[in-house]
Amino acid sequence: MSSTIGTIFKITTYGESHGNTLGVIIDGVPSGLNIDKNFIQNEVNKRKPKSHFTTSRIEEDIIEIHSGVFNDISTGTPIFIQVKNKDQKSNDYSHIKDIFRPNHGDFTYYEKYGLRDYRGGGRSSGRETVARVIGGAIAKLILNSLNIDIIAYTNSIGEIEINNNEIKKEFIYNNDLRISNITDYNRCIDYLKSIKESNDSIGGTIECVVRNIPSGLGQPIFDKLDATLSRAIMSIGSVKAIEFGLGVEFSKYTGSSVMDNFYSKNNKVLKTTNYNGGILGGISDGSNIIFKTTIKPTPSIGIPQATVNSNLENITFVTNGRHDTVIVPRIASVIEAMTAITLVDALLINMSCKIDNLKKIYN
Amino acid sequence: MSSTIGTIFKITTYGESHGNTLGVIIDGVPSGLNIDKNFIQNEVNKRKPKSHFTTSRIEEDIIEIHSGVFNDISTGTPIFIQVKNKDQKSNDYSHIKDIFRPNHGDFTYYEKYGLRDYRGGGRSSGRETVARVIGGAIAKLILNSLNIDIIAYTNSIGEIEINNNEIKKEFIYNNDLRISNITDYNRCIDYLKSIKESNDSIGGTIECVVRNIPSGLGQPIFDKLDATLSRAIMSIGSVKAIEFGLGVEFSKYTGSSVMDNFYSKNNKVLKTTNYNGGILGGISDGSNIIFKTTIKPTPSIGIPQATVNSNLENITFVTNGRHDTVIVPRIASVIEAMTAITLVDALLINMSCKIDNLKKIYN
Amino acid sequence: MSSTIGTIFKITTYGESHGNTLGVIIDGVPSGLNIDKNFIQNEVNKRKPKSHFTTSRIEEDIIEIHSGVFNDISTGTPIFIQVKNKDQKSNDYSHIKDIFRPNHGDFTYYEKYGLRDYRGGGRSSGRETVARVIGGAIAKLILNSLNIDIIAYTNSIGEIEINNNEIKKEFIYNNDLRISNITDYNRCIDYLKSIKESNDSIGGTIECVVRNIPSGLGQPIFDKLDATLSRAIMSIGSVKAIEFGLGVEFSKYTGSSVMDNFYSKNNKVLKTTNYNGGILGGISDGSNIIFKTTIKPTPSIGIPQATVNSNLENITFVTNGRHDTVIVPRIASVIEAMTAITLVDALLINMSCKIDNLKKIYN
Amino acid sequence: MSSTIGTIFKITTYGESHGNTLGVIIDGVPSGLNIDKNFIQNEVNKRKPKSHFTTSRIEEDIIEIHSGVFNDISTGTPIFIQVKNKDQKSNDYSHIKDIFRPNHGDFTYYEKYGLRDYRGGGRSSGRETVARVIGGAIAKLILNSLNIDIIAYTNSIGEIEINNNEIKKEFIYNNDLRISNITDYNRCIDYLKSIKESNDSIGGTIECVVRNIPSGLGQPIFDKLDATLSRAIMSIGSVKAIEFGLGVEFSKYTGSSVMDNFYSKNNKVLKTTNYNGGILGGISDGSNIIFKTTIKPTPSIGIPQATVNSNLENITFVTNGRHDTVIVPRIASVIEAMTAITLVDALLINMSCKIDNLKKIYN
Repeated sequence: MSSTIGTIFKITTYGESHGNTLGVIIDGVPSGLNIDKNFIQNEVNKRKPKSHFTTSRIEEDIIEIHSGVFNDISTGTPIFIQVKNKDQKSNDYSHIKDIFRPNHGDFTYYEKYGLRDYRGGGRSSGRETVARVIGGAIAKLILNSLNIDIIAYTNSIGEIEINNNEIKKEFIYNNDLRISNITDYNRCIDYLKSIKESNDSIGGTIECVVRNIPSGLGQPIFDKLDATLSRAIMSIGSVKAIEFGLGVEFSKYTGSSVMDNFYSKNNKVLKTTNYNGGILGGISDGSNIIFKTTIKPTPSIGIPQATVNSNLENITFVTNGRHDTVIVPRIASVIEAMTAITLVDALLINMSCKIDNLKKIYN
Repeated sequence: MSSTIGTIFKITTYGESHGNTLGVIIDGVPSGLNIDKNFIQNEVNKRKPKSHFTTSRIEEDIIEIHSGVFNDISTGTPIFIQVKNKDQKSNDYSHIKDIFRPNHGDFTYYEKYGLRDYRGGGRSSGRETVARVIGGAIAKLILNSLNIDIIAYTNSIGEIEINNNEIKKEFIYNNDLRISNITDYNRCIDYLKSIKESNDSIGGTIECVVRNIPSGLGQPIFDKLDATLSRAIMSIGSVKAIEFGLGVEFSKYTGSSVMDNFYSKNNKVLKTTNYNGGILGGISDGSNIIFKTTIKPTPSIGIPQATVNSNLENITFVTNGRHDTVIVPRIASVIEAMTAITLVDALLINMSCKIDNLKKIYN
Repeated sequence: MSSTIGTIFKITTYGESHGNTLGVIIDGVPSGLNIDKNFIQNEVNKRKPKSHFTTSRIEEDIIEIHSGVFNDISTGTPIFIQVKNKDQKSNDYSHIKDIFRPNHGDFTYYEKYGLRDYRGGGRSSGRETVARVIGGAIAKLILNSLNIDIIAYTNSIGEIEINNNEIKKEFIYNNDLRISNITDYNRCIDYLKSIKESNDSIGGTIECVVRNIPSGLGQPIFDKLDATLSRAIMSIGSVKAIEFGLGVEFSKYTGSSVMDNFYSKNNKVLKTTNYNGGILGGISDGSNIIFKTTIKPTPSIGIPQATVNSNLENITFVTNGRHDTVIVPRIASVIEAMTAITLVDALLINMSCKIDNLKKIYN
Repeated sequence: MSSTIGTIFKITTYGESHGNTLGVIIDGVPSGLNIDKNFIQNEVNKRKPKSHFTTSRIEEDIIEIHSGVFNDISTGTPIFIQVKNKDQKSNDYSHIKDIFRPNHGDFTYYEKYGLRDYRGGGRSSGRETVARVIGGAIAKLILNSLNIDIIAYTNSIGEIEINNNEIKKEFIYNNDLRISNITDYNRCIDYLKSIKESNDSIGGTIECVVRNIPSGLGQPIFDKLDATLSRAIMSIGSVKAIEFGLGVEFSKYTGSSVMDNFYSKNNKVLKTTNYNGGILGGISDGSNIIFKTTIKPTPSIGIPQATVNSNLENITFVTNGRHDTVIVPRIASVIEAMTAITLVDALLINMSCKIDNLKKIYN
């Protein structure tokens, strides 16, 4: 297992679907930061299932801060935040005890560890992302203090492409599909109803934009900003692709047609376009960071599937109980969190990249 | 800077386009491995430009092994391998001294460090990948000893999709475009000629397949195998997207249509399909690992571009001297290397994941 | 802050003297290990103050396991264990709110972070070592499965040297001073009474012995076994020196007089002596690992001390409330824990040091 | 193997006694630093054997800088520096090919790796410290820019304690025993002559002082400044103990007698004494950092020793050829280097510990 991410700003998480609690130790938080508990709780709430297209498991996910904060200010020591699992329904899962569900981690966990906690997917459950979102909320508090802004929203669901020409935070965060406009929202609702009726699930894509990010972030050559973001984002369950800027479209273009030409205006270097998604040579260039993520359809569906049990017998299996038609909207929260965590670490590491910066701090 | 990658099997590289040498320290190599110098040299040779569509810079890239090997056997101590830069032509670069070339790292390195080594792109040059390929060659020697096999080949160039139904190593490694069949090779040659005539460049995609990989590799949740591979691959210059299995296509499918159903045969668990690209829950499932990478067209082209110099003046600039029409084939070598490095580290870490394994080693 | 230690076997801790809880995430625990909760609780109990020479703060320190264990067996996922702080008495500490206590971390935490949690020393309190002891207990369960044994006991208190010719575990763990024989125990009791009457405290030394450790552990050159042990031990509060084998005495000897000569017996390589404390060239040699640690007297004493407050006024201060005459016995528990954590990590890393070992696991 | 040390400022070394070269990649060097090549060469020269009490192996150790420096200024990219091994005399070593020399790493390397490079001790030779000294020289250039100063000098040789009341850099660096005064120098010369005549060697101690170090360095709880220094220093061959401030003497004192009382003067917080050696709670307090290191006598002596060969036969062995009477003076250079490397890393990490510091850099 590898449950820690980051070099200076580090989060370490624990927790399975059916433990009593799950939580996160956030280390490397600079002292003097105002820890707004409501902001963190609100981030956790944004991740929660809200619509009739997502799982019926209901968790309150009330955060408890146990350390690292004194009089609402970070002290520099590790912050520990915990939530309780309440709606565990352990007995629901006896029927999957011996079954390797296809497209899930059941088989690979068993292969790796020789045993597995079958209850609700154990550590491979999406429940673990609550801890990531809490870590991300602390990271966002740091980014907010520098006016850096992250938003992730639905870019497509199945065949439906969302028009994201205008990014209105309020609209996006206040609908259950994390969609930027009412027209596409309504199209998706109809589409998802038909998927739900057929007891199936559907994939999608999420776009993430970071605004007002300083240039200079990213540590070539192995911790380039796009490299560390890719690792952080790809570590989220169900993510199968990540693309920066034009992404996969780059393969079809000539060099001259995707050139982000520089120009100078008011003593600043700007770009005419942002095909590269804000990262050049693995380092942020000061324009918006833009990347896109592909989410596979959740394999927990109401249609019987051929599979194998731990006695190596060929069987047929169907997921009963709660499952999601689409998980794209919920993963958008986790993408924001992992992006925030990665950017804060890059910001902190980058502070020591010039000798002049040392003199600013130590003289 | 961050020039080290890996947890147990670690490579640390140095070197710029125009230094006297570049090289790599490979740490964590198990002792007792036969270090076949010809194999390593051959890997380096495979990376070298070969056709009239790639840069005219000619480097011999003769490897020198300075440590960690005794009587052709690894001793367990760090292996250091170096190559000399010969064809440096430093004076060629005075005309770009003060220019931020678009789509290159010139501007971002300058923003980050306050200065830059402008000669040939300095550290951001593709030259640094020689060190990665050497590290990858050592990793491949370890993989070879376990019969694990990696191959990366061209999947598309511009609009031309390559038919990769049959993967013949010999054919792929013996053509200058790393293409799997003669028909598509000829189509690409014609296509690239037209691109070259227009002084432009073109992007493409690379597919990479790992065969005979054990199940159980990858360390959830932050070092899932797809997460560490993504970081390693995305750290390569010009890579803009990575996709596992069906990749971006997953977004358009229902859960039932992309299910890799398990079945049992001869006491083994197999899958009917491999939409997921050999990784489930971040852990290898024993089937082939398959991922695809998008390479942007190189920005060094013979068409004048608007840009800015370090005095913040708007200017026009054209790359003169050597440049590539397509860099896809050369990057395939680097993708193999970074994949090998990542897999070896995962193999070594995974050895301690079960208590029974400790007893196999220590009793 | 840096609250994580280890490369594969990693513990990450949180918690201050006066938070609601403190705890530890233990990552990299091999799956299939029997997690004996009573053993862990007993380890925590051994750390607790027992005599009239130690602080009167009473904590139950009941461990709660929240993750990583299923049916009493480790699953390979991170284990989280928590204890509640009950006896916090926050109001006791208002009188030290603005005071930099000498020989404590008050001043340096304030210098580093610009603020501090003054309640009971915050993160710099000895309370944090509960989390280390829990992590160490899990490590010991792994060591126990390989019959590796660690014991730390009092070697001296003030001027009194303990005769440790015979190491009886039961006697050592069942007296409040962690002393190996009744004669020295009685001498120490008398000595400590006089220290206590003068409201003062006293230093001491602890010896730690590891028996039945395999040869070959330690990763030269920067993670030599003595180097990683030194870091782990020196990270414990109040530790001011660490010595291996003869330790500081080595400085006075000639090479010929401290030679651990090898000899062969029954096809095994043995040593006539163990001046080096079981480590040669940074690698365990198979004989007992022996090191000694110096503990400074606790600065919390009942004698008024000149110091400074946060207004930079010169003042006089006296610790009131609970304090310890000697903390040596309690630190012995923490030394065992940090030793166990370090050795397990070395054991796991060492598994991949020979190519033959890979074949044992993967073929 | 573990050949990298540091979190942001990292050195990675390679090289055996008898390879063609040895070298170091220094990563995380801030850009804009003047890289004074003469300073680095001079540091390497200070490490070299100078007297008739040290080995007769003569190496020029001319440094070559291959990367990371442009026009004598660091660019932020990894700096690689190499020296050639010239005086290798490989054939000298055939007589130890099959012998496990006592008190050396021969046996443990063999146990760990199943084979070893027997020529001159391979990686376990003191030659590897050249790479450390080069890394340390780069670190010192950073420290120098902040007026932080490190000096390590002989504190005792055998029974002779050096009077170090006055630390004169010039005297210390200009005698072959790194001793601070002429009287003690002459005493040691006589003493060492007698040791040499008996074909024996002798141990000693080294004191290291860091002056003008900022307060606030060190990352509790596992990277406390004394913890990271201990690891770095203990990783040097022949070091068997490290003590901070009063060190082992602390065990005999009462709390009241070793209290570093604070007082305020001219709006600064000062200490009346420095028993703790400049570190409280694992964080530098702004006073001098002082620690002492014990060096065991080198085991390469001219007196026959009983030992074992790889056939497990009991034999007698005597070191012929070059060996040292005392290695204390040469290790002082390595101690300075490892101290510098550790402090620079602590300085860089500490830059991000307060939220206000982020605003200084990013606003």
